[in-house]
Amino acid sequence: MKLLEERIKSEGRVLGTDVLKVDRFLNHQIDPMLMQAIGDEFAALFANQEITKILTVESSGIAPAVMTGLALQVPVVFARKNKSLTLPNDVYTAEVYSFTKQTTNQIMIDRQFISPDDKVLIIDDFLANGQAVLGLLEIADAAKIDVVGVGIVIEKTFQKGHQLLAERGVHLESLAKIKAFEDGEVVFG
Amino acid sequence: MKLLEERIKSEGRVLGTDVLKVDRFLNHQIDPMLMQAIGDEFAALFANQEITKILTVESSGIAPAVMTGLALQVPVVFARKNKSLTLPNDVYTAEVYSFTKQTTNQIMIDRQFISPDDKVLIIDDFLANGQAVLGLLEIADAAKIDVVGVGIVIEKTFQKGHQLLAERGVHLESLAKIKAFEDGEVVFG
Repeated sequence: MKLLEERIKSEGRVLGTDVLKVDRFLNHQIDPMLMQAIGDEFAALFANQEITKILTVESSGIAPAVMTGLALQVPVVFARKNKSLTLPNDVYTAEVYSFTKQTTNQIMIDRQFISPDDKVLIIDDFLANGQAVLGLLEIADAAKIDVVGVGIVIEKTFQKGHQLLAERGVHLESLAKIKAFEDGEVVFG
Repeated sequence: MKLLEERIKSEGRVLGTDVLKVDRFLNHQIDPMLMQAIGDEFAALFANQEITKILTVESSGIAPAVMTGLALQVPVVFARKNKSLTLPNDVYTAEVYSFTKQTTNQIMIDRQFISPDDKVLIIDDFLANGQAVLGLLEIADAAKIDVVGVGIVIEKTFQKGHQLLAERGVHLESLAKIKAFEDGEVVFG
C-alpha cells in the first residue's frame, strides 16, 4: 500500500536493528484518514468472504480494526490485556509473550462475543514475532470459529511471525512489508 | 442522541446502583457504524471551532475519538496508561484515580504530539467521576493548549464529573445523559 509506505518513510523512526516507531500516525497519535484508507484496503483484500466479525487486541489494533469493520459493516471485538489475577467467568484467554517488553500478558475475550457461527478476520497493527496474532488464533480455536484471514498494517518479514502463520496455513495480508532496516532506513520488499 | 439511547436501552446492562455495562457496542465489542454516527454528531456539536487535534485515553475512548477525528479531518492522540515505573523522557503525565477499580493509573502523552498552537477536543466513552477527563485537562494545562470542549458518549449526571467540569467552565457535550438507574433500568434525562 503505497500511501502507507510513504508515511512510514516520512514519519517512521528506526530504533536499533529491529524496532520501527510509528507513533506519529498509528501507535500514539493516530491519523484517522490513513486508518480509513487502511480499513478500505483490508475490506477489498478480504471481500466476498462472509466475514461476520473483526478480532483485534487493545490498544493499537483498535483504530485499523474499527475502520475495517466500518468498511465491511461488521462488529469489532478487541481482546483485553488482563493485568489482574482474578479473571471474570466466561472468558477465553491466551498467553501472549512480548519480546520487546519481555513480559507475558494474558489476553481475554468474553465468550458472549464469539460463537461457532462466526467467520472472523484478525486485524493487528504489527506482525513481528507473531505472538499477539497466535494468541488470537488460540482463542479462535478454543471458540471453534473459522478464521478467514489475518490483516496486518506493518509486517517485519525478517522476524518469525510470518513463518509461524504460514505453517498454520493462514491467509495473511500485510499492507507494508519491511524486509530489513539498513543504516536507519526502512527497506520494503 | 436517540440512536445511542436506544442501543443503551436494548443492549446495556445495569449492574448494582451505579454501573452500566455497554461492552456489547462500546467497551469490548464495538459497533463501527454506531461509532461513525457518534463521530459525526460530535463533529456537528463542535463545528467551526478550528479544532486541530482530538485527545482521548486508551482503550475505550479510541473508537469514538478516531471517528470524530475522521469527521473533523484532524489527528487523534490517545493517552497511554502507564504501568511501569520507568517513564520515557519528554512526556506529560497526570494521575487518574479509578473509583471502579480503586487504583491510580498514570496517563501520559508524548510532548511532541501537543503544542501551544493546538486547539483540542477531548473525547471519552464515559463521564462518571470525571477523573480521566480531569487528567487530560491537567495535561492540556501543562502543555498550555486551548481545550475547545469535552465530548462524552455516555454521562452519568448523578456522579460528580459533571459538576467538576462545570466548575472549570468547560464546554461539555454528552450524547446520552443518564440521571438514574431505577429497578435495573436506565433513566435518561
